[in-house]
Amino acid sequence: MPDPANPTSRARSWWGWGWADAQLDDAECVALGGLLPGTLTRPLPEPRVADLGIGAPAVRVPRALAQLVTDDPRQRAGHAMGKAYRDVMRALRGQAGRLPDLVARPARDQDVADLLDWAGQHGVAVVPYGGGSSVTGGVEYRGDEHRAVLSLDLGALDQVLEIDRESRAARIQAGVLGPALEDRLRPHGLTLRHFPQSFEFSTLGGWLATRAGGHYATVRTHIDDFAQSLRVVTPAGTGESWRLPASGAGPSPDRLFLGSEGSLGVITEAWMRLQERPRHRASAALAFTDFGAALGAVRAVAQSDLAPANCRLLDAGEAAMSGAAQDGSAVLVLGFESAFAPVEDRLTQAVGLVREHGGRGGEPAAERGAPAGAAVDAWRAAFLRMPYLRDGLARMGAVVETFETAATWDRLPALIEAVRTELGAAAHRATGHPAFVNCRLTHVYPDGAAPYFTVLAAGRPGSEVAIWDELKAVATEVLHRHRATVTHHHAVGRDHRPGYDRQRPEPFALALRAAKRALDPQGVLNPGVLID
Amino acid sequence: MPDPANPTSRARSWWGWGWADAQLDDAECVALGGLLPGTLTRPLPEPRVADLGIGAPAVRVPRALAQLVTDDPRQRAGHAMGKAYRDVMRALRGQAGRLPDLVARPARDQDVADLLDWAGQHGVAVVPYGGGSSVTGGVEYRGDEHRAVLSLDLGALDQVLEIDRESRAARIQAGVLGPALEDRLRPHGLTLRHFPQSFEFSTLGGWLATRAGGHYATVRTHIDDFAQSLRVVTPAGTGESWRLPASGAGPSPDRLFLGSEGSLGVITEAWMRLQERPRHRASAALAFTDFGAALGAVRAVAQSDLAPANCRLLDAGEAAMSGAAQDGSAVLVLGFESAFAPVEDRLTQAVGLVREHGGRGGEPAAERGAPAGAAVDAWRAAFLRMPYLRDGLARMGAVVETFETAATWDRLPALIEAVRTELGAAAHRATGHPAFVNCRLTHVYPDGAAPYFTVLAAGRPGSEVAIWDELKAVATEVLHRHRATVTHHHAVGRDHRPGYDRQRPEPFALALRAAKRALDPQGVLNPGVLID
Repeated sequence: MPDPANPTSRARSWWGWGWADAQLDDAECVALGGLLPGTLTRPLPEPRVADLGIGAPAVRVPRALAQLVTDDPRQRAGHAMGKAYRDVMRALRGQAGRLPDLVARPARDQDVADLLDWAGQHGVAVVPYGGGSSVTGGVEYRGDEHRAVLSLDLGALDQVLEIDRESRAARIQAGVLGPALEDRLRPHGLTLRHFPQSFEFSTLGGWLATRAGGHYATVRTHIDDFAQSLRVVTPAGTGESWRLPASGAGPSPDRLFLGSEGSLGVITEAWMRLQERPRHRASAALAFTDFGAALGAVRAVAQSDLAPANCRLLDAGEAAMSGAAQDGSAVLVLGFESAFAPVEDRLTQAVGLVREHGGRGGEPAAERGAPAGAAVDAWRAAFLRMPYLRDGLARMGAVVETFETAATWDRLPALIEAVRTELGAAAHRATGHPAFVNCRLTHVYPDGAAPYFTVLAAGRPGSEVAIWDELKAVATEVLHRHRATVTHHHAVGRDHRPGYDRQRPEPFALALRAAKRALDPQGVLNPGVLID
Repeated sequence: MPDPANPTSRARSWWGWGWADAQLDDAECVALGGLLPGTLTRPLPEPRVADLGIGAPAVRVPRALAQLVTDDPRQRAGHAMGKAYRDVMRALRGQAGRLPDLVARPARDQDVADLLDWAGQHGVAVVPYGGGSSVTGGVEYRGDEHRAVLSLDLGALDQVLEIDRESRAARIQAGVLGPALEDRLRPHGLTLRHFPQSFEFSTLGGWLATRAGGHYATVRTHIDDFAQSLRVVTPAGTGESWRLPASGAGPSPDRLFLGSEGSLGVITEAWMRLQERPRHRASAALAFTDFGAALGAVRAVAQSDLAPANCRLLDAGEAAMSGAAQDGSAVLVLGFESAFAPVEDRLTQAVGLVREHGGRGGEPAAERGAPAGAAVDAWRAAFLRMPYLRDGLARMGAVVETFETAATWDRLPALIEAVRTELGAAAHRATGHPAFVNCRLTHVYPDGAAPYFTVLAAGRPGSEVAIWDELKAVATEVLHRHRATVTHHHAVGRDHRPGYDRQRPEPFALALRAAKRALDPQGVLNPGVLID
C-alpha cells in the first residue's frame, strides 16, 4: 500500500511479498506453474480488499489519540498478516485471519506509551508491526480473548537521530526500513551491513525483536551482536540501556528484549554498532559431486579463523533452482570483504581448504561474466526474486514451505537426510504429487551450521493451507527429534509455538512468563507470540 | 585449604589470594611496603582461623544430606568471603563477615536440588561457590534475614563428561578449576582458551555465572560467547538448553543465567565451545610518550579487522609497576595467535597502524630476551603475581582498590582523566597520603574499550576498610556520571549493587525481580546479589 507520508511512493502488495508491481503477472504464473507438475492451469486471482467485507472497527480511540490511528480498510487488510506462504495462501483463498480494527502510526515514544495505556484499559490487543515481513505469524492476531486489535505500525519512527563517528555507532529509530537506513549512513562512510532477504521490507525494530540473521555467514551472524543499547516502551514503563561496548553487569538487559517479538515491550530506538563500508571484496564458487564432502569442506572453513562474510552451500536442487549449477552439483559460494585490506589471500586459503575436501573450481569471481562470477550472480539475483516466485507458485496452487534451523555438526548430516526423506514423503502423501526438498546452509559456525529448507509440491485445490500446516507439523517434529532449533533467524511467532514450547527449558519458561506478567500485566502485547 | 578429595594437595590461603605458600613472607611485605611511603613498618600478622571464635552452626541438615555437608571451622572460614581487597583486609583486621554455618559439596545435580529444597523449607540462604575468587562480594552473606547460611561449593562437580570432537565442544561440570579443565582438554588437542587473571582459582561455573572476561582482547571477550548450552538447577526445577551453534527462538534462555551470579539458579554443567590449540603466535610491544595518542592507536586497531588476541595498553604508571617500561612511557602489548596459519602478517599490519599513531618500537618478540619480548614477559609475570602483591600491601596497611569498566570511545578520554583526578584526590584526602592511580585497557572493541584502574595509597591504620568503601563510592559515582558500566567482567556481587541498581533499566529490573520470584520463591539463592 502507499506510504501515507508519501502517497506517490511505489505501492506495496497488501496480500503478497514486496512491491505490488513486482508480483508475477498471470502469464508468468502459468509459465512458472508449468515447471511444477500438477499445479493449476490458471492462476488464482489476486485477492481484493473489497472482497474481505471489512466492517466497522469494534473500538474507537479517544480524541487525543485519533490523529495516530486509522480504520482505513486497505490499511487494516495490509496489516492483517505477515508474508509467510500460509498468509499469502489464506489471502488468495479468502481466509484472511482476524483483521486489526485499527492501525496506529505513533510519531514518538510517548504516543507508543499512550496507545499501550489505552489498550490496557480497554482490553485491546496490540500487535507491533515493523515492515510486516514476518514469515512465522508474528504480526497477526489469533484468538478472541481481546475486545479489539490494534496494529502498531512503527513506520513513522524512521529517523537516524545521532551518529557517533568516533565510536562508529548511531542512534536509530526502530521503524526505519533497510534501504532508507543505509541511505542515511552512506554519506558518513558507514553501514549497518545487515542484509536479510527481507532487507527492503523489514525494519530495524523488527530485526531486533526477532533476532534477525544478516549479512555475515560467520562470527557475528545475528543483529543481536550489533545492538549497543535499546530503548523499550512497555506497559510498565519505558527504559533505555546504557551505550556500552560490552558489560558484565548482571544478565544482559538487552538480550531479554532481543527476540521478545513484541511480547514484552516495543523497541522504539537503538544505538547500533556500525562499520566502515567494505572496499575490498573477493568471492568464488566451488562445485561438489558429493554433498557430504561439501559439508566437510564447510566445516573446515567454519573451524578455521578465515571468517568469510559469505559461506553459502547450495545442495544440487537449490543450485539448479537458483541457476548456480545445472549438472547436479552442489555449489559453495564463498565471499570475503574488508574495509581495510585486500582479501584475496583469505579467499585463496579458503579455496585451498575447500579443494582439499573435494571442491572443484574456485577461481576468484572478480570479473563478472567469468563462470564462477556467473554462479555467484545467479544465486544473488534468485535470492532476492525468490519470495515473488513463491507468491506466483502460490497463485498456481502450489504448496511452498520454507523453514530454517541450526544444529551442531555431529547432528547435521542425519538431520538434513531426515528432513529430505520425511518432508518429501509427507508432502507427497499430503498433495498426491512428487515433492522437491532443497537445502542450503546460510550461516556457519565452528560448532554447527544453519540449514534452510524449501519444500515444494503442487497442492490440492482448496487444501493448501491445511497441507502447509501438516508439513509444518512434520518439520517441527523432525527438528525436535534431532534437537535442531525451531528457528535460527525467522523467529517463533505463532507458527513455531508448538516447537518452541517443547524446546525452551522449563525454568526459562517460568522466568519469561513472570517477566511478561510484570511488564505487560494486562496481557495486551502481541498475545500468543512466545507465551500465552 | 587442602582439597578434601586430595588432602596432600597444595594448600589454599583461607584469607588471601591463591596458594598459602605463595603469599609474601614478612620480610617481603616490609620490602614491598618500603615502595609506598606511609605504610606500616611491620606487616599485620596473617589472620588465624582459631581467632575467629567460630561457634556451632545455627542449623543441621537431615541425615540424608549429612554426607554432603561439613561444619569444619576451617572450611567455614575459607568460604566466608571472596578475595577482594575488602575481604582480605576484613580478615586481617578480624572483621570477617557472617560465616556460613555449613559448607556443602554436592556430588551430582540431585544433591544440589535436594539442598535447595531443604534450604527453602528452612529459610537457609544458599551461596553458590566456585573457586571463591570473587572480588565484588559475590560469595558471602550480608544481612540477617535468613536463619542460617549454606555455602554451596561446586568443587566436587569437576569432570569433563563428554567431548564432541566434530563440533569442537565438551560437556563440562561447573566446579572444575581452570588448570584441571585445560589438562583434560589438552590430550584432545583442544582448549577453552579462557584465561582470566584468576584462572588457577576460578571455575567454569563461576565464569559463566559472572560473565567472566577471558583470553581474547577483541571480538569474543567474555565467556558468554563460548557457552553452547547450560544446565541450571533452580528451586523451581532443573532445566537444560539445547546444544545449538546459534538460535533465534525467543530471547536467549542462556543469556538470562549468564551473569545471574547464583541468584536465579545454580549452573551445574555446560556444553562449551572449544578451539584448536594455537600453534602460531607473534607479539610485540610499542611505547608511547602520549597516552592520548596511544588511545588513538588502540582504537585504530580495534576498528580494523585484525582481531588481535591481546591488545593491552598500560599507562605509564602501570607500565612502570609491571616492569614493562621505566621511562614514563605507556606501553601497548599486541599479540596474535592462530591454530591454522602464521600470524606475523597481521602483527606487522597492526604494528604499522600503531606506528602511524605515534607508537615506537614494535619489533616482533619471537625471541625471548629481545627488548620487546622482555616487556611482554615482564607484564605477564607481573599480571599473575599481582594479587599476591596486593595481599602483601594489605598486610602493610595499604589501601588497594582495583576496578574495571567499559565505555564507548567518545567518552573514554574524559572518563580516564576523571578517574585519575577524582580517585587520586579522594584517596589522598581519605588516607592523608599521596595516591597512585594507574590505568590499563584490557579488552577493546570497535565501539569502545574496557579500562582497568588501580588505586594505591598507604592507609590509616584500622580505617582501611572504611577508606576502601569510600573510594568505591567515589569510583561508582564517577563511572555513573560518565555512563561507564559498573563492571566489564568482575560482576556485580554486593559491592557493586549501588552502581548496578542505578545503571539497570527499570523495565529489566521489573522483569528480573519477577524471574527471581518465579525461580526462587523462598528467596534463598545468594540473597543480596543483583536484586533484593
